[in-house]
Amino acid sequence: MSDLVVVGSVALDSVETPYGKVERALGGSATYFSVAASFLPNVKVKLVAVVGEDFPREHVEMLKSRGIDLEGLKVEKGKTFHWRGRYTDPNTVETLATELNVYAGFKPELPESYRSTDYLFLGNINPDLQLEVLNQVESPKLVACDTIKLWIDTMFDQLLEVLKRVDVVIINDSEAKMIAREGNLIKAAEKLLDLGPKRVVIKKGEHGAISLTSDSFFAIPAYPVRDVVDPTGAGDTFAGGLMGYLASVDRADEEVFRMGMAYGTALASFDVEDFSLNRLLSIGEGDLRRRLEELREMTRF
Amino acid sequence: MSDLVVVGSVALDSVETPYGKVERALGGSATYFSVAASFLPNVKVKLVAVVGEDFPREHVEMLKSRGIDLEGLKVEKGKTFHWRGRYTDPNTVETLATELNVYAGFKPELPESYRSTDYLFLGNINPDLQLEVLNQVESPKLVACDTIKLWIDTMFDQLLEVLKRVDVVIINDSEAKMIAREGNLIKAAEKLLDLGPKRVVIKKGEHGAISLTSDSFFAIPAYPVRDVVDPTGAGDTFAGGLMGYLASVDRADEEVFRMGMAYGTALASFDVEDFSLNRLLSIGEGDLRRRLEELREMTRF
Repeated sequence: MSDLVVVGSVALDSVETPYGKVERALGGSATYFSVAASFLPNVKVKLVAVVGEDFPREHVEMLKSRGIDLEGLKVEKGKTFHWRGRYTDPNTVETLATELNVYAGFKPELPESYRSTDYLFLGNINPDLQLEVLNQVESPKLVACDTIKLWIDTMFDQLLEVLKRVDVVIINDSEAKMIAREGNLIKAAEKLLDLGPKRVVIKKGEHGAISLTSDSFFAIPAYPVRDVVDPTGAGDTFAGGLMGYLASVDRADEEVFRMGMAYGTALASFDVEDFSLNRLLSIGEGDLRRRLEELREMTRF
Repeated sequence: MSDLVVVGSVALDSVETPYGKVERALGGSATYFSVAASFLPNVKVKLVAVVGEDFPREHVEMLKSRGIDLEGLKVEKGKTFHWRGRYTDPNTVETLATELNVYAGFKPELPESYRSTDYLFLGNINPDLQLEVLNQVESPKLVACDTIKLWIDTMFDQLLEVLKRVDVVIINDSEAKMIAREGNLIKAAEKLLDLGPKRVVIKKGEHGAISLTSDSFFAIPAYPVRDVVDPTGAGDTFAGGLMGYLASVDRADEEVFRMGMAYGTALASFDVEDFSLNRLLSIGEGDLRRRLEELREMTRF
């Protein structure tokens, strides 16, 4: 049994897409990541985040029921982080409101029992906080991080510090190009390798994902989804499936990364088929296995 | 030995990209297609196009030296089709001039020896002309077509006629979405299947290509190219490699299409590494085989 610690956001999302809308549904990067990783056997997912007093008890129960350790989930006076957004299509999102609430003062503090974790995922929080988390873990086998445009724009130096100290970076194609200041994605990924990480995993949405090291290249397509009801959380679900698989087999070689990206791809394809985590929470092991088999079949030549 | 007839343009291209520029270099959809298909053994590529009296003799010699049958290449009084364009990046092209010249009066006429062809590719010419070509072939085993935005905008009904009569359509993602009037690419491809073709192959540029039938789905990534010197002709090169492979093995089942798309992908990756057909014409069988092996290795999981 490996530990997998994730630090990020647990939020309530109000999302509108051409397929409908939800109000204050469960969301947040650490939520999607944890639930995705919880599909893998032999992994203890440990979550570090903060919510307000309004955070519905049922969500806590759901996370617990999936075996997710919530000792690191703080409940603070005030309201839970609330994001309101509208997708006109799966690739175009407009943020209508970002109410940070208790998340504004988030200072991730790892419970004692989390510090010896072997696997750590730094969600897209402020790079200064990512560094603080790095200072709290003992000797992890593998650390991966994500980031967002906001931190590339406003905290570039701190982000470079983080990149120096992680093994893997898992980001979107547009973010990779921004950090590297390079329009060609392959060259951008190679520049990222020069900044510290031994592996760069780039998420390309409906175009799948790629992984690069100094001597390997892997590409996997997205699983074809006819009705992308709500793309929220797809990237975090992908990362959770990938990291969950690494922790599950407790190895991180090329073969394992590839299979992990297949798990991430399959799980992300379920995520987008409904609002919030509704679809993800409705599938069984058989559904996941079937989609993995389909992914293998549709890439074979 | 199978025949593979291609009808399209043979042109002179003046192209500027961030890597440099060329003036009146060899180009045209049928040119890229033919040269790509000529890499496959046991295929007699037969070209139908028109050029002007200014068309350099060396290009004719080059095409002949690759075993391409030019009985269908008419030389007419006047100048060769000339296209002038500028790429600011591989996905953004600005057309600066389109001088149709002799191509304006192009009436494809298949020589007697072309009419019994088993494999036919209708390049992106006017759908009325595509229909005229279809009326000149006897009983081809497989017909594929391409098209462009101009014909979708201006000759939609005729294009629908063409789609009813071909086995395969090979087009870009944006064109597929336009024809189907559907923003989701998977749904768009399925709508195209309803219009006639038994198979839809969609080219996604740097994101690779997919193929759909009523009961299969295949996705292949693009080969990662660091320096896209000139993207001109990549789609035609892909189609030429694919159709060349089908004609070469003289079968068109799922396995053969997948391998054909790998050939097309590998050949297109060479095409974009230099202006005009320079890189394509410089590679040997070993280079192609190596890139195919790399493609297989980088998609395996």
